[in-house]
Amino acid sequence: MRRTSRDIRTANRSEVLRRIIARSPASRQELAAATGLSLATVATLVGELLDLRMITEVGYEDSAGGRPRGLVAVDASGGVLIGVDIAETYVRVELFDLALTPRARDEQEMRPGENRPEQVVARVVAGVGAVVARAGEAASRVLGIGVGVPGQIDRDRGVCAYAANWDWHEVPLLELLAEHLAHPLYLDNPLRACTVAELWFGAARGREDAVVVNLGTGVGAGLALGGGLHRGVSNSAGEWGHTTLVPDGRPCHCGNHGCVEAYAGAPGIMRSLRELDPGSPLLHPEDQTATIDALARGVAARDPVALEVVRITAGHLGTGIADLVNLLNPEVVVLSSWVAATLGEPLLDEVRKAVGRYALGRPFAATEIVLSPVPTDPVCLGAATFALEGALRSAGRRPAHRTAPPVRRSAPSP
Amino acid sequence: MRRTSRDIRTANRSEVLRRIIARSPASRQELAAATGLSLATVATLVGELLDLRMITEVGYEDSAGGRPRGLVAVDASGGVLIGVDIAETYVRVELFDLALTPRARDEQEMRPGENRPEQVVARVVAGVGAVVARAGEAASRVLGIGVGVPGQIDRDRGVCAYAANWDWHEVPLLELLAEHLAHPLYLDNPLRACTVAELWFGAARGREDAVVVNLGTGVGAGLALGGGLHRGVSNSAGEWGHTTLVPDGRPCHCGNHGCVEAYAGAPGIMRSLRELDPGSPLLHPEDQTATIDALARGVAARDPVALEVVRITAGHLGTGIADLVNLLNPEVVVLSSWVAATLGEPLLDEVRKAVGRYALGRPFAATEIVLSPVPTDPVCLGAATFALEGALRSAGRRPAHRTAPPVRRSAPSP
Repeated sequence: MRRTSRDIRTANRSEVLRRIIARSPASRQELAAATGLSLATVATLVGELLDLRMITEVGYEDSAGGRPRGLVAVDASGGVLIGVDIAETYVRVELFDLALTPRARDEQEMRPGENRPEQVVARVVAGVGAVVARAGEAASRVLGIGVGVPGQIDRDRGVCAYAANWDWHEVPLLELLAEHLAHPLYLDNPLRACTVAELWFGAARGREDAVVVNLGTGVGAGLALGGGLHRGVSNSAGEWGHTTLVPDGRPCHCGNHGCVEAYAGAPGIMRSLRELDPGSPLLHPEDQTATIDALARGVAARDPVALEVVRITAGHLGTGIADLVNLLNPEVVVLSSWVAATLGEPLLDEVRKAVGRYALGRPFAATEIVLSPVPTDPVCLGAATFALEGALRSAGRRPAHRTAPPVRRSAPSP
Repeated sequence: MRRTSRDIRTANRSEVLRRIIARSPASRQELAAATGLSLATVATLVGELLDLRMITEVGYEDSAGGRPRGLVAVDASGGVLIGVDIAETYVRVELFDLALTPRARDEQEMRPGENRPEQVVARVVAGVGAVVARAGEAASRVLGIGVGVPGQIDRDRGVCAYAANWDWHEVPLLELLAEHLAHPLYLDNPLRACTVAELWFGAARGREDAVVVNLGTGVGAGLALGGGLHRGVSNSAGEWGHTTLVPDGRPCHCGNHGCVEAYAGAPGIMRSLRELDPGSPLLHPEDQTATIDALARGVAARDPVALEVVRITAGHLGTGIADLVNLLNPEVVVLSSWVAATLGEPLLDEVRKAVGRYALGRPFAATEIVLSPVPTDPVCLGAATFALEGALRSAGRRPAHRTAPPVRRSAPSP
């Protein structure tokens, strides 16, 4: 289906705000040039953003000989946004101003076995309370809360349909959260949050087609195609971690064998290390973070085992990324999440070499492969961006934006 | 980048015409409801299409109690479009009216070794002349010619950058054709032509996200994402045939090993047959078409070797398609091109089973897998659609649409 007029207006409003966030102050003329929209359209959209108090007039600039041009900038006082990163071992909450600059941060540790939905919800609620208090904000100024949950998310129903690590099935998470949090809530998968963070603030900004390869405990490939997030028909696009890399290879927790994740996720990298050198001092059997940290230090010290593990991992990743490059012909492939951040440039160099071996010449020549430049937790940032996009979508729908925003309640689960 | 106002207007104009082609006659009110555009926008776009003489007023319908509503339909007399399918063994040319109904057809055989650019161009020119004569049309009524060429196409320069089967490098095909054909010319890859044919007239129509798996001598996966063709940054998206399926597997002509194409392309299927039963009477060593035909007849007769070859082929395809389903979460996967058409339902059934074994449950449940319903040569149809889209893009640009349209000349090759 073509997008409706409302979709297009919302997308254009997002794009104008994104440009203003990227470079403030800005004139309507600059925004028209940067977006390709007409000056009249930009003026209308800027007016809507002013009405929403998301931006503000900040003065004038001289234009050569002509009338002085009005400048606008993000209205840092217009409200705040909260992003939540729910992970297997922690719940991280960050509060941002409307320019998506972090203002306060909280991290709650999740103890092993502490994984019932009510326990996770309690951590989120405590974290939200903590960042609002720390930032010295009134709760009424929170325009929305975005929440990243590792699992298959049904956004329409606000339900976590499945989360493998916690064995969650059909958990009505949005409803559980809404019992405690009277703000618009936006639930999604961390992979999509990271991808949106790259689109708005990272290596995918201004790019038509980008792939965000997420390397953590799990592995995924967030797709930013045509300048926007590609979700797929049931919001599960990006499950690249369960692409078969080695037929009849290592078993994967998804039930298949030889998946990318079984080789390039942190536990897979640990297994490669164990296979290469079972007694390696780099190996911390119960601690992924400590092992990946030790590998990074080993690479820096030119430890041959560490170098070989990175080379093996990059070889697997490179085969898989070459397939993505051939299939999607993206402008940029971004390596994101904590494993990529920890192993850094040495991993990137080996991945580039491996992709070059397997990809076709023409798409490979057209693709940059980079580390994520996002300096903060990309899941919190992306989740807060979902909340910002939600607030933009609601523009013109709410009768008065200063009244308490409605809570988006999900339907009760069956 | 967001799309510009011009892009959006062109896309909306295409969408309105597509709806009119799908169901004529139509009222502006029906078109507004079907597209989600405002009635005012639809009225403007319909006016542009009337000015272009692509559609025509065909009367009125009563609306319950209100004013009679004007109806429009495709103007079959508004001009004709030509689609060309250049393949390794033939050049097929079809002439269509503006509703994309075939009106005339020509096929020129290419003899083995007859593969120099001038020889191919001569076949195309002869075919175009033949279909124009056969349809009894004046050459001036041809609004555009779309040409599908198997290779890497640089559309901006009108150059075939690389065609493996003919060892073409940097062939300035558009320029060579324009020396003989004074019509707007649109060059692209057959994979993209097939995908556009499915988008406008086939199983991807009205779908947000579709994958068109092309099974012929070569193998590819055309991507229709967000309701439009996904080209990638250098127009090479869809090179799924060179995804690694079996590490260190069969050699592929791309230089790698174990590519999907080495198992699921017609020569790969022949190799599977030869490996299973070297003396099989189904095998016609030098003739792909005869072998695939014999396999299809063997399957119909429950020949165990034929059944096993289809099962093996579907197993390889299923692994690869499962990865596409996981990554892209499409609404529909379409099996297209001559191998899919010849092996038909028995292949489809086995592919569905294999995808179900390897794909994740949630995206698999959301995806239909179907055979292409396009009844004519999809490359000719898609190439003619490129010409139609080109004519729509030029709307409002040409001072008078009844004068001879300008030839799109490519820059000379270096």
